[in-house]
Amino acid sequence: MNGVSDPVGAIDRLLARLIPAEPQSLYDPIREVLSAGGKRARPTLTLLASQVEAFDGTPDGAPQSMNEADLNAACAVELLHTFTLVHDDIMDHAATRRGRPTVHAAHGTNAAILSGDALMAIACQALAAIDAPNLGRIMAEFATGFQCVCEGQALDMEFEGRSSIRVDEYLEMIDLKTAKIIELAAVLGSLAAGGRFTEPLRNFAHHLGLAFQINDDLLDLIGDEQTFGKTPGGDILEGKRTFLFAVVMERYAELVDEDRNLLDRIRDHRATPEDIPRARVLLGRLGVLDHARAAASEETRRAEEALEEIPDSPARERLREFGRSLLGRER
Amino acid sequence: MNGVSDPVGAIDRLLARLIPAEPQSLYDPIREVLSAGGKRARPTLTLLASQVEAFDGTPDGAPQSMNEADLNAACAVELLHTFTLVHDDIMDHAATRRGRPTVHAAHGTNAAILSGDALMAIACQALAAIDAPNLGRIMAEFATGFQCVCEGQALDMEFEGRSSIRVDEYLEMIDLKTAKIIELAAVLGSLAAGGRFTEPLRNFAHHLGLAFQINDDLLDLIGDEQTFGKTPGGDILEGKRTFLFAVVMERYAELVDEDRNLLDRIRDHRATPEDIPRARVLLGRLGVLDHARAAASEETRRAEEALEEIPDSPARERLREFGRSLLGRER
Repeated sequence: MNGVSDPVGAIDRLLARLIPAEPQSLYDPIREVLSAGGKRARPTLTLLASQVEAFDGTPDGAPQSMNEADLNAACAVELLHTFTLVHDDIMDHAATRRGRPTVHAAHGTNAAILSGDALMAIACQALAAIDAPNLGRIMAEFATGFQCVCEGQALDMEFEGRSSIRVDEYLEMIDLKTAKIIELAAVLGSLAAGGRFTEPLRNFAHHLGLAFQINDDLLDLIGDEQTFGKTPGGDILEGKRTFLFAVVMERYAELVDEDRNLLDRIRDHRATPEDIPRARVLLGRLGVLDHARAAASEETRRAEEALEEIPDSPARERLREFGRSLLGRER
Repeated sequence: MNGVSDPVGAIDRLLARLIPAEPQSLYDPIREVLSAGGKRARPTLTLLASQVEAFDGTPDGAPQSMNEADLNAACAVELLHTFTLVHDDIMDHAATRRGRPTVHAAHGTNAAILSGDALMAIACQALAAIDAPNLGRIMAEFATGFQCVCEGQALDMEFEGRSSIRVDEYLEMIDLKTAKIIELAAVLGSLAAGGRFTEPLRNFAHHLGLAFQINDDLLDLIGDEQTFGKTPGGDILEGKRTFLFAVVMERYAELVDEDRNLLDRIRDHRATPEDIPRARVLLGRLGVLDHARAAASEETRRAEEALEEIPDSPARERLREFGRSLLGRER
């Protein structure tokens, strides 16, 4: 019933209803971070997945009505995602996100820890409001997604302290940290609306999530500032363990000293802004950028392949468009 | 089935099963904090409440078997409690707990934030494993308990920055921060085993929780180090907003300068060890200690009164003994 024509509006209204007024010291930072320009991509995916489930084959392909279960599941996913941003920003000492001060920068570390915690409590409230016979299954998927993002963040922090990581280790980390929550978004939408196509929807979202993160790593180095929304090269300056970093470090032994010195500076978090164009040239020359493009394309192909297991419907095509839009390919 | 004769052992075994081996950087601190000498009071209360529900009136009063639902609910409560300790210790800059380094002192703030987060993810896993038709109700109670402890901690942090708090504000804070989780322990045990006596069990645990916290505040000042397990007067040195502090500050206007100066030092976190016996004398003379004793007794009386709404059974009497033991009155 809610928000068929305006899913983001429906999500925002339920989120607003879920956040109490007081104590303000707890809930004001939460209201701020929830309204800080997130695109609601994950809960939108939840609602799209539930529409795929609800499509009954009527010829006009009108989107089915959304029910409270779908919206609660969607909000639980958005709250989980927002929780990870708030706590990860503390751990990464990030001062800004989307051009605004992070919660811990604006309100202090204690308030940020507690805001993240309360976001999860409210996510549990949203889940508890799902009146469905398969709530146990929904909870199990949610708990696993929650646990996976914690494990992914733990691996990410471990990797920051290591001089190199293998590509398979990197892929395991982003699977846990990034892809699992996108997977969860689709799976909960499916389960809240019947669960006929849970596995194809899971596979679609899993591969989409991997493509999204590899693409994000690539755009951080070669993206257009206007389109990407942040200054390129941030990952190089921070010495982040990205897909590009993992791939290029596998070639370290064959490189000349000048190239090794550049990679050493990146690895040891000592890269300068001048190193950004140098890294772009080196990774282009070594074929690392093409490797990343090919890996993202392959994951995208697998995602679209998973969609073929779902009967054709307008809802399925909206899901395909969503995937393309997430990867910035609609531009 | 499990642990009728050894409830703490059954809880510990399930907790051990719930914690994965890897990544070690995430789960080793969790294993440490879970085995750091907690008495498992809250999950024991969950199992006792479920035994009250399960008692079928057989004359020998043998304890009923525990099922997986009870144990999962009990572990979810213990995990929630442990999560609050880990995150609260970061916020309070506490270096030790039960004589051991806190998680953030031993492993750093980032690991402690993430350990707390993962404890909640595992709590959600335990809840998801409860195969009961009233899982939605169980989840709603759990989410509310989780949210209340966040609100209680937010109020506690607000109060630390204020020069005085009213007794009713203090009671609201400990209701949220301490009593609600004890209430949750009893309610989940009730709901996981039928839910006939949920409200009397909730009331019992609620008043027991308030009595426990007021008693704890009192023992911190006048307790015997041997019995209480920590050096008396810690709350005075830290300037904590306790029941005693709230009550004595209501009398501030009528005091002479010397007494006011003592309270000012406590309030402004500048009290010295010499101030501990002074505070003991002042609070005794003003009747604040007797006031606290009377308040704890009144809450205890209400807790025991709530038990009268439950049919007489050996399980109910074990619950009464549990309450006395929690308040240290069995010694």
